[in-house]
Order: sequence, then structure tokens, then C-alpha cells
Amino acid sequence: MPHGEAIASLIDHTLLRTEYTPADVDRVCAEALEHGFATVCVNPIYVPQIVERLESSPVKAASVVGFTLGAEFTAIKVEQARRLIEAGVEEMDMLLPVGLLRAGDYRAVFEDIAQVVKACHGQGVILKVILETGLLSLEEKIAGCLIAVKAGADYVKTCTGFAIGEATAEDIMLMRRIVGPAVGVKAAGGVRSWEKARLMVSAGASRIGATQGVVIVQQSVHEAGSDPTQS
Amino acid sequence: MPHGEAIASLIDHTLLRTEYTPADVDRVCAEALEHGFATVCVNPIYVPQIVERLESSPVKAASVVGFTLGAEFTAIKVEQARRLIEAGVEEMDMLLPVGLLRAGDYRAVFEDIAQVVKACHGQGVILKVILETGLLSLEEKIAGCLIAVKAGADYVKTCTGFAIGEATAEDIMLMRRIVGPAVGVKAAGGVRSWEKARLMVSAGASRIGATQGVVIVQQSVHEAGSDPTQS
Repeated sequence: MPHGEAIASLIDHTLLRTEYTPADVDRVCAEALEHGFATVCVNPIYVPQIVERLESSPVKAASVVGFTLGAEFTAIKVEQARRLIEAGVEEMDMLLPVGLLRAGDYRAVFEDIAQVVKACHGQGVILKVILETGLLSLEEKIAGCLIAVKAGADYVKTCTGFAIGEATAEDIMLMRRIVGPAVGVKAAGGVRSWEKARLMVSAGASRIGATQGVVIVQQSVHEAGSDPTQS
Repeated sequence: MPHGEAIASLIDHTLLRTEYTPADVDRVCAEALEHGFATVCVNPIYVPQIVERLESSPVKAASVVGFTLGAEFTAIKVEQARRLIEAGVEEMDMLLPVGLLRAGDYRAVFEDIAQVVKACHGQGVILKVILETGLLSLEEKIAGCLIAVKAGADYVKTCTGFAIGEATAEDIMLMRRIVGPAVGVKAAGGVRSWEKARLMVSAGASRIGATQGVVIVQQSVHEAGSDPTQS
């Protein structure tokens, strides 16, 4: 498999900034179909549009819950998940309540995630839980991973890309070590080049969230050498 | 009325960053009670806490809807509003769907706001509509104001503070000119000093959103001269 396709299949092609229009969404769907990205990830209002554009392709529709602050009522996160699934989403990324994690209220964090997991897994939908690693201490990162796995998350993920901090190899290695081989690790936040994407995969990431997916694939095609999926 | 209290009564004392903990929320409630801010504005998970802390005081509990990206399903925004009101919120700030405004889908923007207005006004709750002015052209700012007023918003507001751009005197004057005297104008985003707050009020703002409310009040007390409510 060429590096281009190998790396593309790991990328969530992501378009979440508030200023994006339906025309931008069409563009990223076309890019995703051309390059074979894993998913297109957009805000809820654009989900019907991507579901239509990606129909009968292997590219999945993805969206977000409790985004970008993670501090919604759990009941709202569950309702967001339900409506996204109804609209055709197959994968979603939720932000856990970072302030409660930092305060050590692990029970509330667990309940928040577990309720959304319940809404997803009954429908075969994959749930990724964002830690917002840039705001957490080492202990909080570890606790966040353990709680997310215990609550049934399919992936743990580094950052929203909207707060301080970005994905680092150190954090990816830590997260992979904690969640083990059966749970996914998604590197997101500041992954804008093939070099960075390859570093993330080498460190243990099984998915990349990026707005620069096309650049990453193009750079990977131009480079000889290691296949990131083999490292 | 001293400048300190006069300006304090115009300030939404705001704590929305994801990393804040219940201890931070207690601190801002104490500050609000001490200085007499208009509201304390926090994320939904902290609303029960502020409602309890602010009980039987003139300081109102406030929160946010469709925040920080504005691109939730309208039905979710309505459900967020309903649950916030149920929890005791008396004012809320919602972000309109910026991408749809930029795309000229005015009908969708109107419907989005009007549905949340409907949830609020039946309960005597004030709704402020954020334009995210830093991302808009002059034409889009004007359209956003007109649509928000037509849909029944109680205030129009400049920025979330989480995207590019901040409140400017030029934008506040524009917004005040469009919405007229009967609708509020809230300056938020980058208002961190008494000098800036006074400039906003002079330009026509009737409310200030700030995390630095205590600093603003302290600076105003130390300064002789103009009363912002008289300018």
C-alpha cells in the first residue's frame, strides 16, 4: 500500500472552525473521497450534508459532542449523540468535563462518558474521548485515560485543537501505554505535516485528526522511506 | 453612584474556559457578590453551583448555548436553553451559526435564533446573541444584527472570546446604530481594562462580558473623571 493511502486511511479530515460554510464542507468531502480519509469530521449542522456527499463511499461521517468546552450537561451530550446518530454519524469525538477531571471528581467524569458511550454502542457508533492534554498534569492525563477506558471509550484523544497545547509523542506514548492495544489513540492538535503525523503513529497513534490532511498525504507521497503503519 | 458600582452593574463576570474547576466558580461568585456584577456566566455544568451561591442576591445566574462554535442543531440549542432555565439561569448567551450567516442562509440563522428566543421569553429569560464579529464582514455584521433583532434577541454581542477578534468601538457603534435603543449591545472579547470597558460603554455598549471584571472595577475606582453610564 503506498504511503499516501496508508496514512490517509488513518486521518479524520476535520473542519470544525465556526466560520466554515457549506461550500467549505463540500470541498473537504471531495478531498476525503479523493484521498480515502477515514472520516470527515464537521460540526452538527453540516452532518446531513456530509452524510449525503459520502454516501456509498468508505469514508465515514463524523462529528463532535460537548465541543469545544466539554462542560455541557451530560443529558445534553447524550441528546447530541442521539441526534448525530439519527442524522447518520458513525464516529464522534466528545470532550470530557476537563474542570471536573482536574478537580478529581472522577465519578462525574466517568458518568459523563459512560452515558454517551451507552448512546453510541447500542448503534454501533465509535466514540472517541478527548482529554485536552494541554491543560492536564501527568496525573490528570493518566486518570483521564483510565476513566475513559473504564467507561467504554473506543479511543482516547489528545486535544480539541481549540485550547492551549497540541499532540506530543510523549503524550501519545503515555496514552498508548495506559489504554493498551485494544483501545484506539487519536493524535489531534497541531498535526499539520507528514513528519508530525509519522511521529504520532510511531509513538502509538492509530488515528490522526487534522485539517491539513491533504498536505500530510502529499508530503508522504513525496517522501521515500518508512511506512508509518509498520513502525 | 461611584464608578466602581456603576461599571460593575454592567459586567457579566465570566468564567468559561474548560480548565476551570468548582473552586474557581466559588471564587467568581464571591467576587460577584462583593462587587455587584450583573451576572456570573459559567458553563452549564456549573450552573447549579452558581444558582446556589447567588441565591437571594441581585446577581443573576447566566450561561451559554451553542458555545463556542454555534454550529449545533437548533433543536439541541433549544434543549440546552430549556435545561439551563430549569436549572435557574436568568440570562444566556448563544452563538448564531456563523458559517450559515457567512453563506447568506439568513432563513436558517433566523430560525435558529427564533427557536431559542421562544424557549427563553416564555420564562422571562434574557437572550443575548453573539455574532462573532471578528469573523464577519461589515455586511455580515449588519445582517447578523438585523436577523437577531427580528428574531427577538434581547441583546446582540460581539465575540465569544474564543475565536479571532475582539470587541471594538467601531463594531459597538455599528451594532448600536442598527439595533436602536430598545435592544442591548454587549461588548465581549478582549475587554480587560477600565479604559477599554469605558470605551465600549461610550460607543454604546449596555453590557460588558469580561473575565477581568475585578480589575476593571478596581481601575475605575482609582480613576477620577467620567461616569461611563453618563457618556
